[in-house]
Amino acid sequence: MKHFFLFLFISFSISVFAQENESDKDAFFIKDIYNTALTEGQAYDWLMYLTKEIGGRLSGSPGAAAAVEYTYQMMDSLGMDTVWLQPCIVPHWVRGDKEICRMISKRMGTVELNSLALGNSIGTGKKGVSGEVVEVKSLDEAEDLGKQGRLRGKIVFYNRPFDQTQINTMAAYGGAVDQRVFGPTMAAKYGAIGVVVRSMTNKTDDVPHTGVTRYRDGHECPAVAISTIAADELELALQEEKVHIYLRTTCQNLKPKLSYNVIGEIRGSEKPDEIILVSGHLDSWDVGTGAHDDGSGCVHSLDVIHILKQLKYKPKRTLRCVMYMNEENGGAGAYAYRDSSDVRKEFHMAAIESDRGGFTPRGFTADGHDDIFVNKFKKVIEWLPLLEPYGLHLRKGGSGADVSKLKDQKGLLFGFEPDSQRYFDYHHTDADAPDVVNKRELVLGSAAITALVYLLDKYGLD
Amino acid sequence: MKHFFLFLFISFSISVFAQENESDKDAFFIKDIYNTALTEGQAYDWLMYLTKEIGGRLSGSPGAAAAVEYTYQMMDSLGMDTVWLQPCIVPHWVRGDKEICRMISKRMGTVELNSLALGNSIGTGKKGVSGEVVEVKSLDEAEDLGKQGRLRGKIVFYNRPFDQTQINTMAAYGGAVDQRVFGPTMAAKYGAIGVVVRSMTNKTDDVPHTGVTRYRDGHECPAVAISTIAADELELALQEEKVHIYLRTTCQNLKPKLSYNVIGEIRGSEKPDEIILVSGHLDSWDVGTGAHDDGSGCVHSLDVIHILKQLKYKPKRTLRCVMYMNEENGGAGAYAYRDSSDVRKEFHMAAIESDRGGFTPRGFTADGHDDIFVNKFKKVIEWLPLLEPYGLHLRKGGSGADVSKLKDQKGLLFGFEPDSQRYFDYHHTDADAPDVVNKRELVLGSAAITALVYLLDKYGLD
Repeated sequence: MKHFFLFLFISFSISVFAQENESDKDAFFIKDIYNTALTEGQAYDWLMYLTKEIGGRLSGSPGAAAAVEYTYQMMDSLGMDTVWLQPCIVPHWVRGDKEICRMISKRMGTVELNSLALGNSIGTGKKGVSGEVVEVKSLDEAEDLGKQGRLRGKIVFYNRPFDQTQINTMAAYGGAVDQRVFGPTMAAKYGAIGVVVRSMTNKTDDVPHTGVTRYRDGHECPAVAISTIAADELELALQEEKVHIYLRTTCQNLKPKLSYNVIGEIRGSEKPDEIILVSGHLDSWDVGTGAHDDGSGCVHSLDVIHILKQLKYKPKRTLRCVMYMNEENGGAGAYAYRDSSDVRKEFHMAAIESDRGGFTPRGFTADGHDDIFVNKFKKVIEWLPLLEPYGLHLRKGGSGADVSKLKDQKGLLFGFEPDSQRYFDYHHTDADAPDVVNKRELVLGSAAITALVYLLDKYGLD
Repeated sequence: MKHFFLFLFISFSISVFAQENESDKDAFFIKDIYNTALTEGQAYDWLMYLTKEIGGRLSGSPGAAAAVEYTYQMMDSLGMDTVWLQPCIVPHWVRGDKEICRMISKRMGTVELNSLALGNSIGTGKKGVSGEVVEVKSLDEAEDLGKQGRLRGKIVFYNRPFDQTQINTMAAYGGAVDQRVFGPTMAAKYGAIGVVVRSMTNKTDDVPHTGVTRYRDGHECPAVAISTIAADELELALQEEKVHIYLRTTCQNLKPKLSYNVIGEIRGSEKPDEIILVSGHLDSWDVGTGAHDDGSGCVHSLDVIHILKQLKYKPKRTLRCVMYMNEENGGAGAYAYRDSSDVRKEFHMAAIESDRGGFTPRGFTADGHDDIFVNKFKKVIEWLPLLEPYGLHLRKGGSGADVSKLKDQKGLLFGFEPDSQRYFDYHHTDADAPDVVNKRELVLGSAAITALVYLLDKYGLD
């Protein structure tokens, strides 16, 4: 019995010692990752090229094609085992002329409202459309009025603002964006001739925010976003008198085009069938240059490979880097990737998406199929002590529009979560440009994602 | 016995229930604090006035006097019990003409280096000074060369850059700033005729960063900071050939002036002798408008009072709000406050300083006299579950230049710790202006500090 306890004690000691040793090794390696990112990270230089030299990258545009070419070359230069283009058919929407959105009333006369047509929306035709404005705060309110026949021939103004009390601005966006995505089709269903949506932002300024709208069942009408200052003006005017809006957009949905996801892979040395994916989306809106959305996510993902290569790290599992095409207005890249992966019966043990900007990292959200989430997340949580010194948390939450499509493969899905406070100052606007990205904030993102990839690769999720 | 256990069980339940109830109440109140800050916080509006209407506020300047007047009025408008000005005698340094720092070498010819005279430094006189450049990386290296007589008649160039691998940029600053503070006096001690210091920043750009220098034992020479791009150019040139610098500054230390700390107080209803202090410093450098440094800290502190007033909160302990004068180049305000407080035998149970900018809050650092720190900090750590949902940590670390002078009163000293990544992009430069402050990031700071004040007031530190 005495010997048994001695044995137990020794086993225990060895195990604790081994553990501590391993944990120290991990801590040192993660520090190396951060040092490399902060001194040799390439994310910022790549992003400057992507935004300053290439610019806006809307699906189907020359910019998107140039970005495919550029990131293919960059990936190739990183010495991955394989780099390839994966075809997908993307919508090809073009904005056309500068939008006109004119508020007209007796008391105020004519006031120009700063606007941007919503992505995928139809145009008004060159003559434009004119109608009385009906303000609503929700889809339900629009539907109610619609059923009473009160939207017919009207311009519907969706004006529910962001909830400023949400600490995470993503939650405020989530609570308002239904107006932009489904507002126009709802209004069209009840005979509205146009839609004006309050811009999706926390900020009060004169910058309109575009973004996708989705028509259902053939219910279509022209739709623009107006700046929050313009929305406040319109709201005030409507409290006083009847207001008309003249709207002119010449945007068009052209014939779909062939485009590509850009993919690179380092084959795992021990468990090549367990894939760890890092990703961002290569397309952006046509206004601005998609610096935060989602140039940042693309260069983060490339930098993960770069940093691990600098550190001569050989992954046990297969590490794949994907620049998705068409996240903004269709998801064609994500579907093409998922379909191809399913056909080949691949297993994404973990898939990480960076699509919330290049701000200071706060951590990761994790998601997954109900069958596996709790157990796999428990495993990941054990790594928190290694991540907390870098100000990183792990919490349950959505992953990302692209990688979430891999849920049925029953791996763990992660969304990189940087600080959210400034994201909607720039999101889908002219202001999403290189000058609003801070180099250190950006490369700290590269480091955070690389650290998670390292732990996933080393320990797996079983 | 059975009854005894039943009794124990009931007592335990009641105590757990009471605790949970109290903790829920706290969580609700802290949520109210955040909601109020995010929807009615005044910090941003005050900061816009302080920076756009008043501007730079160097001690002794008309801007500093205007800021005293303005914040006195603001404090008065908040309905505090008492508002007063506390006199202090401040240094009165003026920059004079735009600095000239000219690099001259055979190969390169004459190159202008973007520079700013260091605060409190003496001028070169109108003719300027010229000398061969000697580059050093540290005070020790300067001293070694000085003892060998190799600095006499020379211009010493301090060129140790920020350590980019520090995650917290404050640590990188701490590791480099001795060159600016003590480099000039060290060089002067060994006969140098001027000093050029690499700017204190992570960023590679052409913006020079001023800041204070301190002469000791009468060893004085003119000193400027040059931009990091200029420093890199100078470093490169020195690898090739001898380089001379022509330096011209006309800064002067004028006669000290009378200035003030601005102080407001709400008298505690139950324990008025336990003071909780919130503070920032009202003075700034003359370049830029001190938006982050430390306009933010001032308006944070005012906003704490505003938010608690909005919520009709009556503090049990005395709540004091201090706008310190002269943090940047002397600390006269902090000494005046400390001396007056000690004479009156006051006890600052807790003193919080916000002087690290108006960026997204990450938490608080805490410090205190060795006799009390461990026990009092243990108490504070118990509140973490209430602060963590807002992304706030608590860690041991320095408090702030002003409140640290209260250490001997044996209360707990806190430094508000926002995200540090962008701070040294702006610190002590022309760029520290209203446009680089984000409203939500700023008011989240007001909320974080108010939450800590609430917990300190409610529970004390015994």
